[in-house]
Amino acid sequence: MDNESILITGPEILDAGGIRRGSVLIEDNRIADVSNTLSPGDADTVIDGTGKLLIPGLVNTHTHLSMTLFRGIADDLPLDRWLNDHIWPAEARLNGDYCYAGALLGCIEMIRSGTTSFNDMYFYMDHVARAVEEAGLRCVISHGMIDLGDTEKMTAELRESRRIIKECHGMADDRIRVALGPHSPYTCSEELLKETAALADKNDLMIHIHVSETENEVSEVSRSHGMTPVEYLDEVGVLGPRTVAAHCVWLKDWEIDILAERDVKVSHNPSSNMKLASGVSPVARLLQRGVNVSLGTDGAASNNNLDMFQEMKTASLLQKVNLEDPTALPAMDVFSMATLNGARALGIDAGLIAPGKLADIVILNTRRPHLTPWRNPPSHTVYSASGADVDTVICDGRILLRDGELEVLEEKYVMELAEAAAAELTG
Amino acid sequence: MDNESILITGPEILDAGGIRRGSVLIEDNRIADVSNTLSPGDADTVIDGTGKLLIPGLVNTHTHLSMTLFRGIADDLPLDRWLNDHIWPAEARLNGDYCYAGALLGCIEMIRSGTTSFNDMYFYMDHVARAVEEAGLRCVISHGMIDLGDTEKMTAELRESRRIIKECHGMADDRIRVALGPHSPYTCSEELLKETAALADKNDLMIHIHVSETENEVSEVSRSHGMTPVEYLDEVGVLGPRTVAAHCVWLKDWEIDILAERDVKVSHNPSSNMKLASGVSPVARLLQRGVNVSLGTDGAASNNNLDMFQEMKTASLLQKVNLEDPTALPAMDVFSMATLNGARALGIDAGLIAPGKLADIVILNTRRPHLTPWRNPPSHTVYSASGADVDTVICDGRILLRDGELEVLEEKYVMELAEAAAAELTG
Repeated sequence: MDNESILITGPEILDAGGIRRGSVLIEDNRIADVSNTLSPGDADTVIDGTGKLLIPGLVNTHTHLSMTLFRGIADDLPLDRWLNDHIWPAEARLNGDYCYAGALLGCIEMIRSGTTSFNDMYFYMDHVARAVEEAGLRCVISHGMIDLGDTEKMTAELRESRRIIKECHGMADDRIRVALGPHSPYTCSEELLKETAALADKNDLMIHIHVSETENEVSEVSRSHGMTPVEYLDEVGVLGPRTVAAHCVWLKDWEIDILAERDVKVSHNPSSNMKLASGVSPVARLLQRGVNVSLGTDGAASNNNLDMFQEMKTASLLQKVNLEDPTALPAMDVFSMATLNGARALGIDAGLIAPGKLADIVILNTRRPHLTPWRNPPSHTVYSASGADVDTVICDGRILLRDGELEVLEEKYVMELAEAAAAELTG
Repeated sequence: MDNESILITGPEILDAGGIRRGSVLIEDNRIADVSNTLSPGDADTVIDGTGKLLIPGLVNTHTHLSMTLFRGIADDLPLDRWLNDHIWPAEARLNGDYCYAGALLGCIEMIRSGTTSFNDMYFYMDHVARAVEEAGLRCVISHGMIDLGDTEKMTAELRESRRIIKECHGMADDRIRVALGPHSPYTCSEELLKETAALADKNDLMIHIHVSETENEVSEVSRSHGMTPVEYLDEVGVLGPRTVAAHCVWLKDWEIDILAERDVKVSHNPSSNMKLASGVSPVARLLQRGVNVSLGTDGAASNNNLDMFQEMKTASLLQKVNLEDPTALPAMDVFSMATLNGARALGIDAGLIAPGKLADIVILNTRRPHLTPWRNPPSHTVYSASGADVDTVICDGRILLRDGELEVLEEKYVMELAEAAAAELTG
């Protein structure tokens, strides 16, 4: 791909470092300069940033992208009925084409709502990778491994993970990286978890795993192993700085210490945790102990959209009401979670608007009634905005959305493809 | 206003009664017919409803509209600092022009996000009424009365309420009605509350009041009156079928019985209750006992937007996580709260798509990536959609928004007016 230079003139800039004004020059796939002296002559493409807010692309650190096909098939149900009667039967009918269609749809939804990077665990991940390559987004993908103690299944899961690593790691100019995805401590055997840890170590790979999502899981793991999930995962070697632990709802104090010590990256998924009534993650405490907490939407079957703006607001409001403290998780903290902490979690050199950083950038139109008066960028971004305010999206130096128009993929075609796939899968 | 007939052809229709398909004919300000046999020749204006979802206009039963001017001035603060250091000093500088500007802005925000009716308590309400008249929306307004035991202040507050009733009740072809707005049991004297009850009785007016929003309020009222807020308000005669009680977070079981017996209309404000860390209203229990619970956004200073779609999702998710029950407050129930229950609360003959009902109608574009696959209208409306999916809005038979374009007010001018007012007020 022939990346040219792009200049965004005069927007307000908001990142985890604060608010300022300045033009942003992108050369190839990196931010080359941020200053007030850049002039339009300096770039091949000029985007007028007047009246706009420029932020780092949002990072969604826990998704199951192809589950967009299952949006709305089952709501307001207990977790066991949701899984047994709806999700698992539908997943049993999945194939690569369906996962490709669902991933394409999810990519469009993410682009339109300002997400440039994500961390996806699911099935047929080579097909997901193909969709992401076409969409121009950045991601970490992992094959979700579940063996339930079946050795043959374990071997097959590890084989599939190796195949995905071989086929997809580094794809799309290194925008796509592959991680290992042992589903959870209660669906993976001890051997699978240990094999995963060894494989990750040997190949310098990330691990993506669900941890302590429900109270039931904690009871089950404690019964089986005489340890809490975090203790157990630590013992089998799965926890480290390159591990993204999704959910982390039910944590004892000493488990927070372990997560902090191991520098595990926690992905908080407030909408999903609320919708499935899983519980409330102790996010404020995790952050206080220095844990890198980022945000995820989880799959569209338990959310039911991929809008990270909604996720930011929900995260903050949920901490406040749960801790009975209106000062909990203020706007800047949750904004940092969705940007810088997300980038750190995925090992991506982005999340800040600064020279040298990858050019993953989102521009919001601030001249909207619900963002008026325009006076407090972090507050408005977190509490008032929605994904629909996203105007322009740049990932890896390439414009994916401009003035609300997609520059990648055929939206109408993708929606038809997804509708057809969904009808076949669940109709 | 010369209302003509409008035909919306072939949308899906969702209201508290369920889902169906049919064309909708509007004549003057009412729905004249809903059927599959209507043809475009039958109407002056034809709107193509293909690929659209038609729902009743959403009803926001607790707002302080002019507070849009205070959006983002103070977040992440304890309630006392929020009020004492920010909101009250800014409110002391309010005047009619500012309230008009804030109300116009709020009206545009509501139209764009699918709200057609609302229940507003604030100051300079004749100026708010003027804005609503121009915007074409429907509302109940009340002057917020606070006397803090000062008899002179009480007299002035009642005088202002009487003035607003005289000037505004029945304005704009009866789209604007006036209620009495005693602020709360802890900011109004017993005499003011009793005078309010008598005045409401005599003039057949609604009452709009904050009730049991915070735990502090309950302690204070209990200390002062030896009763809980609901018991106390019942004793002074304020509770009845025409009373809208906002918040109702801290309720004893027997208070729920009183609210049910008196047929009090409860307005639930989940985003505000979360953001200010007020607590979680027992909405599922209120509904079980037959209380008419509707939804409100509260003011933009504690939310920080007026998007009722967001409010629906938040209401459902908050009940689920709080009750540890994923089946709590399912999509259809919360959708009914935002439509039919809201209309009932405000005494408006709307909230259903049926012949004879007032033509307050919202049309959503369902062909959006985040609403794909389109398969479950209540779920998608509550859990996946946002106000930005609103395409067309009709209130009282008049088109206010069509294909995303406002047909009332000058959006750019209103935003400039609001920016200027906000700068003067808080700059």
